[in-house]
Amino acid sequence: MTRERAIAVPRGFRASVARAGIKPSGALDLALFASETPCAAVGMLTTNRIAAAPVRWCRDRLPAADIRAIVANSGNANAATGAQGEANVQRTAEQAARLLGCLPSQILLASTGVIGRQLPMELLEPALETAAGGLSNDPIQFERAAEAIMTTDTRAKIVSTRHESPEGSWSILGICKGAAMIGPSMATMLAFLLTDAPVWADDLQPIVEEAVDRSFHCLSVEGHTSTNDTVLALSSTAGSEPILEGDQLSVFSAEVRSVCASLARLIADDGEGATHLIVIDVEGCGDDEEARVIARAIANSPLVKTAIHGCDPNWGRIVSAAGYAGVSFDEHELSLWIDGVAVFQNGAPVEHDPSELTARLRSQREVTIQLRLARGNGGIRFWTCDLTSEYVRLNAEYTT
Amino acid sequence: MTRERAIAVPRGFRASVARAGIKPSGALDLALFASETPCAAVGMLTTNRIAAAPVRWCRDRLPAADIRAIVANSGNANAATGAQGEANVQRTAEQAARLLGCLPSQILLASTGVIGRQLPMELLEPALETAAGGLSNDPIQFERAAEAIMTTDTRAKIVSTRHESPEGSWSILGICKGAAMIGPSMATMLAFLLTDAPVWADDLQPIVEEAVDRSFHCLSVEGHTSTNDTVLALSSTAGSEPILEGDQLSVFSAEVRSVCASLARLIADDGEGATHLIVIDVEGCGDDEEARVIARAIANSPLVKTAIHGCDPNWGRIVSAAGYAGVSFDEHELSLWIDGVAVFQNGAPVEHDPSELTARLRSQREVTIQLRLARGNGGIRFWTCDLTSEYVRLNAEYTT
Repeated sequence: MTRERAIAVPRGFRASVARAGIKPSGALDLALFASETPCAAVGMLTTNRIAAAPVRWCRDRLPAADIRAIVANSGNANAATGAQGEANVQRTAEQAARLLGCLPSQILLASTGVIGRQLPMELLEPALETAAGGLSNDPIQFERAAEAIMTTDTRAKIVSTRHESPEGSWSILGICKGAAMIGPSMATMLAFLLTDAPVWADDLQPIVEEAVDRSFHCLSVEGHTSTNDTVLALSSTAGSEPILEGDQLSVFSAEVRSVCASLARLIADDGEGATHLIVIDVEGCGDDEEARVIARAIANSPLVKTAIHGCDPNWGRIVSAAGYAGVSFDEHELSLWIDGVAVFQNGAPVEHDPSELTARLRSQREVTIQLRLARGNGGIRFWTCDLTSEYVRLNAEYTT
Repeated sequence: MTRERAIAVPRGFRASVARAGIKPSGALDLALFASETPCAAVGMLTTNRIAAAPVRWCRDRLPAADIRAIVANSGNANAATGAQGEANVQRTAEQAARLLGCLPSQILLASTGVIGRQLPMELLEPALETAAGGLSNDPIQFERAAEAIMTTDTRAKIVSTRHESPEGSWSILGICKGAAMIGPSMATMLAFLLTDAPVWADDLQPIVEEAVDRSFHCLSVEGHTSTNDTVLALSSTAGSEPILEGDQLSVFSAEVRSVCASLARLIADDGEGATHLIVIDVEGCGDDEEARVIARAIANSPLVKTAIHGCDPNWGRIVSAAGYAGVSFDEHELSLWIDGVAVFQNGAPVEHDPSELTARLRSQREVTIQLRLARGNGGIRFWTCDLTSEYVRLNAEYTT
């Protein structure tokens, strides 16, 4: 097992990008991922009742054994767009299928951006044709694709891992975008996992579900679950090579978890306006779900997030957020550490030097909040970021 | 029934204030309300697992038939303060009882302010003695008491109503504070309802529960339920006059609801840093609870709150917040109006002039969001405020 800084492109995949002009800035806004062979594919999609048209399209097709491409655009979410939005999804899939020589049902789609506006098909269609003409397995194309799906992200998010062993070699490439409208149960986040590990959709589904559960479902910028959340995972070799089994499948599963956790961390760290990445470890709960509920309440509390922004180790806001999360516990079982310093133990404040802790928070981007109960072995890691005036500015003054 | 601008002080109640010095600013920080006769009293208290010491004190005593006074301080929440915090509550009740000539169990307590610090008893005790010496039924004392319980509130919140009829005359005086850590299921909000309407605790309890359910439970600044939420209601004549029954009790109940709704609205309007009061009406739901869940998701979405701050009628953020609230509905049944303008109807965007709507939002403090489903007759009104850079500044830079 080796991890390289260079991007490992899984066999069979090519990528391309274009500037459709959907983003008024003229930045890259269309990404195309294509496989030479039909892929085993699974997806996890938003639970929002107002699901975007591309989300409904993917939901109808997954899991599948014959996916050939993903068309992803930024700048327009194609959400809450009614029948016209559905027709535009259909048209895009038909065009991509013509360009790649497959069926529309073999195309997956993802969109992110403004809600409630129709996709400008007159811009999208020529751009898709351009993108199809530029497909390549050059790693730079995947980096540009990560850039093309960005909205208010400040940096492209791409992670890869490569596994080599006598039993076979494979890699996983993960690309995602986040920035805001990031709530637990995903967000306007798109993530694409491409692999040449030979895994059937039947095996891939529970692996991706578990990995998403421990990564993108443990992630919040402001708790607003989007209409467009999409995680898609494609294996290019599931039809052509001996399928991974037993220990090999376990190694693959662990690597998928690791890639997803890295991507989730990147999203929290690049939350809109963020000046701190906050890592919340909740332990000692009755089960993992209890831990998640407490971690989410802390992560979504504007009072906790503004205190961290002010570099104030305000443990009162943290324990009170835990207290209203909905988990029934006794104050006396609660202990809390901020950046490794015990501030509250077994229900009572612990003497510490808050100014030293403040100085530490000022000097570093990452803050760890560790909360422990005495109920059992349930635990979870959750990622979020602080709440800043810049977040407010970005979300109040973006307008029209 | 008449409503007066002047404050109606219910018979039997006196109030007083003092500057204990708990607030570093030297502002008023102690309020004392006392009744000459034992009061029927009920309370609704925070559901936070980390309940402050005064909250636990009140919970042990209510409902009651013999309450004589409320001691309320601002500047220190006496929350997460362990055994010492409990001892300080006991000591305060004992002192107040001595000063008023009653038992400690006849005293109720409420605190609001910083979490995790012990009450400075050396400051509180002389101040309580001063306050007890200044008790008076002059309306000005109740106005000053409303001021003494303020934290980051910018204005005192006091509402009164007076009922006169051949069957009897009575009034209700409501005093509260809010500002932040305001989440549904109350908040660091304190509210005291004083009345001379003759109502037993048994009748008062369901009346107050219903009123709170439709007012303080429909209120959010940032969704953070506090450790100190307290609503107390006292009737000074329940032991001495014929008890209200039938229609008279219904009139009283309606007036309690009205007073609570007015107070809740005042709290939302004075949310920390707020530039807009947002009134959310959700209708056409399967039941009122469904409506509340949807309204709360909209009210707590930082994306909705920042959009309103930017005077952008961003209906996409509103419908997507409704979509992740957890209520199972179909997109096609959803319609939305912003400030009376239809922007989304039966699942599809409605043509409108967003710049006109923006201009309107810029010119007024209050914004109404009306969302309708087609599931039934359940509905609710919810109050919140916008999210501003000033909120972030207040909560990041308050520090030590």
